[in-house]
Amino acid sequence: MNENNSSNQLAAHTVSAYDEDLQFLVRRIAEMGGIAERMLEESVAALVNGDAALSQKVISDDLVLDDAERQIGEKAVLIIAKRQPMAADLRDIIGSIRIAADLERVGDMAKNIAKRVLAVHGMAQPKKLVRGLDHLAELALTQLKEVLDAYSSRSPELASSIRQRDDEIDAIYTSLFRELLTYMMEDPRNITACTHLLFCAKNIERIGDHATNIAETVYYISTGSQLSNERPKDDETTSVGAEEE
Amino acid sequence: MNENNSSNQLAAHTVSAYDEDLQFLVRRIAEMGGIAERMLEESVAALVNGDAALSQKVISDDLVLDDAERQIGEKAVLIIAKRQPMAADLRDIIGSIRIAADLERVGDMAKNIAKRVLAVHGMAQPKKLVRGLDHLAELALTQLKEVLDAYSSRSPELASSIRQRDDEIDAIYTSLFRELLTYMMEDPRNITACTHLLFCAKNIERIGDHATNIAETVYYISTGSQLSNERPKDDETTSVGAEEE
Repeated sequence: MNENNSSNQLAAHTVSAYDEDLQFLVRRIAEMGGIAERMLEESVAALVNGDAALSQKVISDDLVLDDAERQIGEKAVLIIAKRQPMAADLRDIIGSIRIAADLERVGDMAKNIAKRVLAVHGMAQPKKLVRGLDHLAELALTQLKEVLDAYSSRSPELASSIRQRDDEIDAIYTSLFRELLTYMMEDPRNITACTHLLFCAKNIERIGDHATNIAETVYYISTGSQLSNERPKDDETTSVGAEEE
Repeated sequence: MNENNSSNQLAAHTVSAYDEDLQFLVRRIAEMGGIAERMLEESVAALVNGDAALSQKVISDDLVLDDAERQIGEKAVLIIAKRQPMAADLRDIIGSIRIAADLERVGDMAKNIAKRVLAVHGMAQPKKLVRGLDHLAELALTQLKEVLDAYSSRSPELASSIRQRDDEIDAIYTSLFRELLTYMMEDPRNITACTHLLFCAKNIERIGDHATNIAETVYYISTGSQLSNERPKDDETTSVGAEEE
């Protein structure tokens, strides 16, 4: 009986160390998510206000995300090697590698926006453009927040609903794209700055794509099956201008 | 002795089924790589020649890559769960998930170029731009081919040298970016088509980034350690125009 007890204790100890390992991944991803959200917010604020100091902060925050992704990847491999997890946990651990990669890319997008702040600064930004970019960023931020909620609550329903809402971001991106082209045509002096704004808009649209990727991973983690491949991952601006031929 | 023999046979049988599992991943990735290379070549050819049929082919090829990535991801999880591999094999299997994701993204970039063929068609494309795009695509294609060689030969030296050469792609991308801006300013009627060409150039530059990602994964697979984080993953056009303020 004594033996039984100590073997139970051992089992409990092992399970709890394993749980701690898994919790480490969950916690690090939540941290990465928080940083990525803040970087997106701050990069767009820096762009709209021409705030060079804030843009520098975003650029250096990106290194934190790079390190976190590497750390999650290494820890995930260690956990798998040490614990030899069964299917559901294995999906979870591999899912964390994927999600960390998506969040690292979100950081890259925000950094890329921040790096354009100087090139755009000084341009008279029409209110309509600024409002459009702000709105696009807000939608992407909401997607990001909700998909991180879906991850921490392991909710396939929430994940699946987020994935469908990416269309809204695409529609706003398309209208911004058209406005930016018009603005360039009206005054060629706007061309350089508007090109940078185009890439900023594209970066935000891609953040929406990464949120969608994460939603798919969360669905896979929590159900073991893949969402069907019906969402169009590409933007709809690729044919702007084609109708005029 | 008889027993020993049959246990040896069993071990050999198990090892060989395991090897087959690993070979499956290697083979599928080589196939994905071949398709991604062809998609890049064909998308740029379609763009330069205004070939709508070829662009349609590239767009539908992308579905093949999407399926292959999903298949590799699922197979990788099955192999890990069934074989409980030790560290080196585990790195290899998880590396294959990462590489498949990068190749799938390369396909997305090529598809995005192909989708712009109609919007660019009809524009008088100056020879200099076409030559620049062709050159950029050639460099990215070389990177892609070599990184797939590095993967099949598990060569960390080759992987590490590829990663350093991404700078050349960035330099050509930057000069193309400037040329496209100039061309837009000279004649506002070029703005729409040039904007699409800008995104095409950016897509090719990003294919170079994905080749670099794959190089890093190959290095990790073959050595167990990460390449230092010194390469600038971002492009250098983000400050074009800023010097004029």
